[in-house]
Amino acid sequence: MSNRTTTYNFNAGPSALPTVVLERAQKELTNFQNTGMSVMELSHRSAEYEAVHNGAIERMRKLFNIPEDYEVLFLQGGASLQFTMIPMNFLNEGEKAGYVLTGSWSEKALKEANMLGDTYEVASSKENSYKHIPAASDWNIEEGTRYVHITSNNTIYGTGYQEFPSIDVPLIADMSSDIMSRPVDVSKFDMIYAGAQKNLGPSGVTLAIVKKSLIESAKAENPTVLKYKTQADKNSLYNTPPTFGIYMLGEVLKWIEEEGGLENIQARNIEKAGLIYDAIDSSDGFFVGHAEKESRSLMNITFRLADEALEKQFLQEAKEAGFVGLNGHRSVGGCRASAYNAVPVEACQALADFMKAFQAKHA
Amino acid sequence: MSNRTTTYNFNAGPSALPTVVLERAQKELTNFQNTGMSVMELSHRSAEYEAVHNGAIERMRKLFNIPEDYEVLFLQGGASLQFTMIPMNFLNEGEKAGYVLTGSWSEKALKEANMLGDTYEVASSKENSYKHIPAASDWNIEEGTRYVHITSNNTIYGTGYQEFPSIDVPLIADMSSDIMSRPVDVSKFDMIYAGAQKNLGPSGVTLAIVKKSLIESAKAENPTVLKYKTQADKNSLYNTPPTFGIYMLGEVLKWIEEEGGLENIQARNIEKAGLIYDAIDSSDGFFVGHAEKESRSLMNITFRLADEALEKQFLQEAKEAGFVGLNGHRSVGGCRASAYNAVPVEACQALADFMKAFQAKHA
Repeated sequence: MSNRTTTYNFNAGPSALPTVVLERAQKELTNFQNTGMSVMELSHRSAEYEAVHNGAIERMRKLFNIPEDYEVLFLQGGASLQFTMIPMNFLNEGEKAGYVLTGSWSEKALKEANMLGDTYEVASSKENSYKHIPAASDWNIEEGTRYVHITSNNTIYGTGYQEFPSIDVPLIADMSSDIMSRPVDVSKFDMIYAGAQKNLGPSGVTLAIVKKSLIESAKAENPTVLKYKTQADKNSLYNTPPTFGIYMLGEVLKWIEEEGGLENIQARNIEKAGLIYDAIDSSDGFFVGHAEKESRSLMNITFRLADEALEKQFLQEAKEAGFVGLNGHRSVGGCRASAYNAVPVEACQALADFMKAFQAKHA
Repeated sequence: MSNRTTTYNFNAGPSALPTVVLERAQKELTNFQNTGMSVMELSHRSAEYEAVHNGAIERMRKLFNIPEDYEVLFLQGGASLQFTMIPMNFLNEGEKAGYVLTGSWSEKALKEANMLGDTYEVASSKENSYKHIPAASDWNIEEGTRYVHITSNNTIYGTGYQEFPSIDVPLIADMSSDIMSRPVDVSKFDMIYAGAQKNLGPSGVTLAIVKKSLIESAKAENPTVLKYKTQADKNSLYNTPPTFGIYMLGEVLKWIEEEGGLENIQARNIEKAGLIYDAIDSSDGFFVGHAEKESRSLMNITFRLADEALEKQFLQEAKEAGFVGLNGHRSVGGCRASAYNAVPVEACQALADFMKAFQAKHA
């Protein structure tokens, strides 16, 4: 029998949601704002749902400081569908799309684009086991490049961009695993997209922030539902949207607002990740971080135990102590703590304490 | 201030969910089965979520009597994405896809297929304002047809197939608005798909039941996430699925099971729709049904008031009396009562009573 206080949710996504958000959703789950209906039972064409929908868009615009000339879209299909939709909409014959490779997700994005057009690697840290983010000064952007695609945070390898470059061609970022973890200068990008299931809400909603000029420049002959323009023209209501997920996303944004906005969220994320990175750095090699220090992610802290046999024991004992989701991604193994926005400081402190106690017992 | 007892939800989708399902979800929304986490916070790779996911698939197989040689898939993007994925996966050069036109949704399905390959109309009731379902004996299936596509129930016009033909080419049905409203002989179809937001759960999940041989015969060169084979090979876990929606879908299926299965559900749906159709048929022309009697839908009852000015008043007074969603689709106007599975008999009785009382006052 576990409860929310003794369970430390470090899942990589879907992941922790703010308790207060869940409690509010719980309270009105059978009767939303005295409509006599659940928010799930509202028509997506009703005034009540429209307020939910537009409220989420407005909060997103305000909190993330999104310029007027960008659309805020709610799509479906996760980042995986964006891997296809982006080249399908924007990559024309005779053009090239450049991808910066920083892990498995950027590899997948490149692979899908490569099926639909010409692509190339702008930079890659693959030979360094994706332990770092290639410096922008090492990017090689070729002539005729339609866009450059990056993955801002790499859940599997635990790396993240510390800053974003300003470049001369459209920059597109998959921010699935660190969106709303810190303020971002949106104007550096032509497009930012994110699956909701890490920092925004439940799985099943994909947020896309797209410059209007990029949308207008897209190919016209694609399937209707796979064109950004379709959803932009209809305020993401061309077909039935995932209404409950968008409602939850709006509630999570409200919570970010209540917490004081992205500056506060970022400060807390630095503190949280710092607690765990300190436990690694002060362990004298007992714990070994995967990412190089200057490329470390604030969201996903990846590490191993120097002693492989002990690693198994660590993961087992951590599980028994109420820590959830500490196993590394199945493709790389090791340990990973995902400390997204909704993971409280207390959980990170508890993990740091647990790591130190485990080391004291076994070193 | 409305509550669930005095609110009669006749929304066309998203629509009513069983109160008991919402109450159960509410109870465990912050702590699912004593995991200390919401079901939304579970990893989609966890044993707890896997049980939810596979439980929903198993219930679907059992309740809908799905043969072993069919896959049960949970996708995203609604029926609108299926309109594209079907021809993208199955329609090869030199082949034709045949569409039976029975309303706006089949028109849309045809339009998307037409962008990707050769298509034709197998039959159509457009010239009759979509008031009926063309008889199978009037279908014209051409040689070289890869598949025939139908819309089993037409939400906008209020018609539905009373039975399904057995044909020699793969039959594909959009059952978005009547799936699980009655038993169906799945073996007549190569594929059945449905957006969840009418009879299955919240919006954001698309159910696809696809014959394994059809999946295997699909084109290989499509974008990974748009291939049925991708999700079939990964049990719909290629990428993060809409976990909360699938959980709710499983809970709705559990409720269907508790209600005695599809035979009971069908009997109740006949009773429910009957109450409203009777109010129309016994009104001596005060209410005019849109669909021809032998093509009437059990799910969406479409009608007008002979007196157009009174129609506005009817809709206004109905709204004030707690009836939600009675306006016809914005493309056709009039009135529509969507009496999906979760709409109780009492709501249909209340509507029939209200219609009769309104007529008595104004006739």
